[in-house]
Amino acid sequence: MAGNSFGTLFRLTTYGESHGPSIGGIIEGVPAGIALTEADIQKDLDLRKPGGGDTQSPRKEADRIRVQSGLFQGHTTGTALAFLIENTNQHSNDYDELARVFRPSHADWSYHQKYHGFRDYRGGGRASGRETAARVAAGAVAGLILQQHGIRVFAASIALGGIWIAPKDRDCAGSLGRKYFAASSDVIPLWDQCVHDARQQHETLGGVVQIEAKGVPAGLGEPVFDKLSATLAHALMSVGAVKGVEIGEGFGAADLCGSANNDSLLPPTQDSGVRFASNHAGGIVGGISTGQDIVVRCAVKPIASIPKPQQTIDIDGNPCTITIGGRHDLSAIPRIVPVLKAMTQIALCDALLVHEHVQNSL
Amino acid sequence: MAGNSFGTLFRLTTYGESHGPSIGGIIEGVPAGIALTEADIQKDLDLRKPGGGDTQSPRKEADRIRVQSGLFQGHTTGTALAFLIENTNQHSNDYDELARVFRPSHADWSYHQKYHGFRDYRGGGRASGRETAARVAAGAVAGLILQQHGIRVFAASIALGGIWIAPKDRDCAGSLGRKYFAASSDVIPLWDQCVHDARQQHETLGGVVQIEAKGVPAGLGEPVFDKLSATLAHALMSVGAVKGVEIGEGFGAADLCGSANNDSLLPPTQDSGVRFASNHAGGIVGGISTGQDIVVRCAVKPIASIPKPQQTIDIDGNPCTITIGGRHDLSAIPRIVPVLKAMTQIALCDALLVHEHVQNSL
Amino acid sequence: MAGNSFGTLFRLTTYGESHGPSIGGIIEGVPAGIALTEADIQKDLDLRKPGGGDTQSPRKEADRIRVQSGLFQGHTTGTALAFLIENTNQHSNDYDELARVFRPSHADWSYHQKYHGFRDYRGGGRASGRETAARVAAGAVAGLILQQHGIRVFAASIALGGIWIAPKDRDCAGSLGRKYFAASSDVIPLWDQCVHDARQQHETLGGVVQIEAKGVPAGLGEPVFDKLSATLAHALMSVGAVKGVEIGEGFGAADLCGSANNDSLLPPTQDSGVRFASNHAGGIVGGISTGQDIVVRCAVKPIASIPKPQQTIDIDGNPCTITIGGRHDLSAIPRIVPVLKAMTQIALCDALLVHEHVQNSL
Amino acid sequence: MAGNSFGTLFRLTTYGESHGPSIGGIIEGVPAGIALTEADIQKDLDLRKPGGGDTQSPRKEADRIRVQSGLFQGHTTGTALAFLIENTNQHSNDYDELARVFRPSHADWSYHQKYHGFRDYRGGGRASGRETAARVAAGAVAGLILQQHGIRVFAASIALGGIWIAPKDRDCAGSLGRKYFAASSDVIPLWDQCVHDARQQHETLGGVVQIEAKGVPAGLGEPVFDKLSATLAHALMSVGAVKGVEIGEGFGAADLCGSANNDSLLPPTQDSGVRFASNHAGGIVGGISTGQDIVVRCAVKPIASIPKPQQTIDIDGNPCTITIGGRHDLSAIPRIVPVLKAMTQIALCDALLVHEHVQNSL
Repeated sequence: MAGNSFGTLFRLTTYGESHGPSIGGIIEGVPAGIALTEADIQKDLDLRKPGGGDTQSPRKEADRIRVQSGLFQGHTTGTALAFLIENTNQHSNDYDELARVFRPSHADWSYHQKYHGFRDYRGGGRASGRETAARVAAGAVAGLILQQHGIRVFAASIALGGIWIAPKDRDCAGSLGRKYFAASSDVIPLWDQCVHDARQQHETLGGVVQIEAKGVPAGLGEPVFDKLSATLAHALMSVGAVKGVEIGEGFGAADLCGSANNDSLLPPTQDSGVRFASNHAGGIVGGISTGQDIVVRCAVKPIASIPKPQQTIDIDGNPCTITIGGRHDLSAIPRIVPVLKAMTQIALCDALLVHEHVQNSL
Repeated sequence: MAGNSFGTLFRLTTYGESHGPSIGGIIEGVPAGIALTEADIQKDLDLRKPGGGDTQSPRKEADRIRVQSGLFQGHTTGTALAFLIENTNQHSNDYDELARVFRPSHADWSYHQKYHGFRDYRGGGRASGRETAARVAAGAVAGLILQQHGIRVFAASIALGGIWIAPKDRDCAGSLGRKYFAASSDVIPLWDQCVHDARQQHETLGGVVQIEAKGVPAGLGEPVFDKLSATLAHALMSVGAVKGVEIGEGFGAADLCGSANNDSLLPPTQDSGVRFASNHAGGIVGGISTGQDIVVRCAVKPIASIPKPQQTIDIDGNPCTITIGGRHDLSAIPRIVPVLKAMTQIALCDALLVHEHVQNSL
Repeated sequence: MAGNSFGTLFRLTTYGESHGPSIGGIIEGVPAGIALTEADIQKDLDLRKPGGGDTQSPRKEADRIRVQSGLFQGHTTGTALAFLIENTNQHSNDYDELARVFRPSHADWSYHQKYHGFRDYRGGGRASGRETAARVAAGAVAGLILQQHGIRVFAASIALGGIWIAPKDRDCAGSLGRKYFAASSDVIPLWDQCVHDARQQHETLGGVVQIEAKGVPAGLGEPVFDKLSATLAHALMSVGAVKGVEIGEGFGAADLCGSANNDSLLPPTQDSGVRFASNHAGGIVGGISTGQDIVVRCAVKPIASIPKPQQTIDIDGNPCTITIGGRHDLSAIPRIVPVLKAMTQIALCDALLVHEHVQNSL
Repeated sequence: MAGNSFGTLFRLTTYGESHGPSIGGIIEGVPAGIALTEADIQKDLDLRKPGGGDTQSPRKEADRIRVQSGLFQGHTTGTALAFLIENTNQHSNDYDELARVFRPSHADWSYHQKYHGFRDYRGGGRASGRETAARVAAGAVAGLILQQHGIRVFAASIALGGIWIAPKDRDCAGSLGRKYFAASSDVIPLWDQCVHDARQQHETLGGVVQIEAKGVPAGLGEPVFDKLSATLAHALMSVGAVKGVEIGEGFGAADLCGSANNDSLLPPTQDSGVRFASNHAGGIVGGISTGQDIVVRCAVKPIASIPKPQQTIDIDGNPCTITIGGRHDLSAIPRIVPVLKAMTQIALCDALLVHEHVQNSL
């Protein structure tokens, strides 16, 4: 399939550039009869709205969801659920100079090559972080379906500008109430200072986001190519700034010996099913969920738009210097947090429905 | 799609359990007229053959490729290219006790849950590492297509048992001639000792593999969901023991500031196209290849089958102790190296053909 | 995939109910750099606009196309091309009584069963003929791509109310200028009379549409399941009122002997390639195009909404009588003609791009 | 997707040329725990075995099914179910002369063009009717799943050589016991004579096959592009000799007025659900099953291999005469009957599983 769709049964197809009339998407595979309102979606969309924290651009976006189909009298109809978000508050002239210059580490160059020079250079066009709004909207719908199956997904920042929150101190479930959607309150002053310093130095910052899914039944994911770990990695790595994805111990597992990485099974108790002595696997073994919490981490690179002079070339190949103005976030943290949560919800919802069908259809 | 297929145009569908009559696959999307022999595929298959190095099981497998269709008079016909590899030298009785006990950190439990107790427990059935032979066979075909476009893929071990090869010392292109498919010769004595110690302690080891693709043109990958980074992550994370995937600086990028992570473009010279001052991006920006080398790393967990007693439960939920006998590798390194190379070739070949068609069809 | 998408590389995903805010779609796989304006699409959309001929509803629809993405400075950008058409001039109250009664031979009953009673009953919701506007819009884009490859598609009515145009008299290429998009002018008075009589008798009419594609190169279509004949049949049978599809001699071929149905190949001449002595095959043999004209016919059932009393049941299963008011066409002819042309263009464009890539990528 | 796969969730991918080592396929989406033996599949395969009736080639094929994976201890495991059928009794030398000559109305020319001259000309290669054996094998598995849902599919010949069985005389359910899989015994003597005459005249014959599915619940099929009618048409038109597909009244509906084509709903009785006064729709309205019998007809063209001289050209474009020897059926009837039944079972099984999941997953 072309690159604008994700999922097999719960399937999202999106469109939109940051400076076109609107961005939006079509969700296929939403069961009929789910109670849904635009407000349910708006709630999640508001979490990625800019203008919130220290790291963010002062740009204000309405980002108002407008469902176009698949919803009737407060319930889903089972047919394609389409939505759009109008683009407002655009300052296209901020980007005029970008028509002829390639910003370092932006998609300008790769898009220019791929599309033979035909591209909407305003705000990065299709490569703009703005496309993630459609992911969040679809993630909200997926979240409602997961909820009906007792599954909840949480996401939190665990590192910013090189300052990490230790594993034992990570509370992802409580992140919504915290600045930076941080996994712990204690780190916030340190991050504030780090952000302040970066701003002084005209720098940008990267970070790490941890996502946890609780209540996921054992059995989700398919063998071989569509392992749950693989589809989650696909979903999360498809978000612009993500450069790495790991599950459970992740890269740490490479340095462990077998006995330290294995998770022993424990007999069920009266008030619980089978349990495990540990969860080094992050809830996925052989690509199939085990019933434990699913734990995933994503590496987020620093924002490429830095307000200091950089060497680059123009479309004629001549060397030049660019200093990027405009309104830009200082870090993808925290706005990327609800996006990664949404992609996890979409991937889990699809895996859930595929499993439901194939193995429970008899 | 169900979980046994990978790719949009260059599409691999596989089958097979380790103790059935055979394993194999069907490749769709192979252009007609490519000179291909079974020997071309066998060459790559032999690289993952067990019985080679210190870390490996003494089990001998013929793993002889037998092409069933799509090949006529030494050239591909453009129709489905099917192949199979007969399973030989099976010791199913090694696994009889496993019918009722769940091995820790194996897919026994998750498969048992997913498939309601119906599973081929011999050698892990569909979850056996043996299925990777089909990936390697298809990767060989993908490699021939890539070659015709001037693309070459290399893979090498850069860490084993916690002993890493420093970035500056990594020579992936030369790995084929080295034990462990190591990225450097210097580390081999250290790894030998590490493996020896692990065997003494009845332990298993994990490691890290680095894959590099050279000659990849700019423009491969699709925007949004099928970014080249996302499909590579999907392809690599779908290999059993992989718990993490990172591109370029990967998780390291999370700790860098923007100016340290950005790659400046440099003007073309007489004998080269556009160049870059650095390659922190690992050859992919905005999900699209830049024309630089693609650099990916995979975290490989230690083998779950350890020859020491472990606590677990049986299918009735009763606690028990298991000591895994049979013939098992001590580490997925080095046998996983050609598998990860193959998956990279398959993902790149598919991205190449999709791009060729969509953007060069006019 | 769910039911709202068609195509592998040139891929259309649509949404929309007749009484929601809008209908529309997303097209993936449009190459970059194609000169395209909204007017190019509007031109085709206007061909299916109601309010035109004797058979049509007096309802007036603006059906104004509004491209949302994938278009910049008059050229396609290669990214998802999204469009929408606002729904206007709706008389939802026309449909209030339909909330509880199943119209015979409408999708009311089957949708009610499929979606457990959750459905937008206004104007048939997702089953409304109105969704075909999105097909026509996408068909216009496909048509531009086909044009660049020298392929033109024509469609014409060859039967209405049981009155057929003889094969020798069919001129599909000239249909645009004729009432009913008829394949011949001579039949028009007869059809006028037939329509007049049907209106007197409160009846509706069916018909047959013939589609011809000229300039199609040999080699389009894939073996086995995605034969060009099969994807065309899928595309055309997916249009609401179509109950049959045949290619070349079609059902007539069943009554022919081999020598009468075979098409002999003739040597090429100076000013032409290989020719055929006949085209009983309708341009497709073994599922692959031969280079001859592709000829397809579709059976169109009479409109189910008849303005006379019919027996049916309500949602409680009680028998009742319904007389359908509202504004309805008397026949799907001629408005379905541009829709079937559009679906043929979409299927051919997808087949062209898939073939381009797979066989010409080396 | 490439052309060798069919289905979304119950997905068949096949391979194989008539003169390679084997043909076969991989079925994805088979639920775990279905009791299945090779004999269950062999039973259906034997129905298409040649050497049976007057119309058939004397060639004898073992066509012995050999399941390679997905089956363990008499039950499906839920993983990819692969099977192969070895090619035996091949007389490749029958085809040597075909390497350079294009047989009229065979796929020789279109394949030669598509694949730039690379093709397995022996027995038609991938275009050989032999590939349908894989469809029948997969259809048998689909049939078992349908059976568990109370769905049975029947297929019968209703026309051969221009001699039709009248609608009122068609008994598809009883066809298995009859020569030609005829829908009525009375026609058999007439068909015998017709076949005898054709053989005298060195001619071949076409026919029509009717397929009926009983017990199909209301609600199968997806709106818009994957209407059940559309996926059935795709499935059936993908069989080599099929040139037309119609549902219910089909092309006859084009000549009916609305009141004659509509099916009135009748209230449920004590011992039945909702009924209909007629079934002109053939069990599908708006692309969704109604709960009535599904009725489909396929036009089958006469065999292209006729044992009399025909004009054609060779691969150099020179005119020549060909008289096709070898062993060929005189008509695709009756061997195509179990193939069309199988494709209907595959399409219905996929639609059933897709519907099961999407609408019953909550």
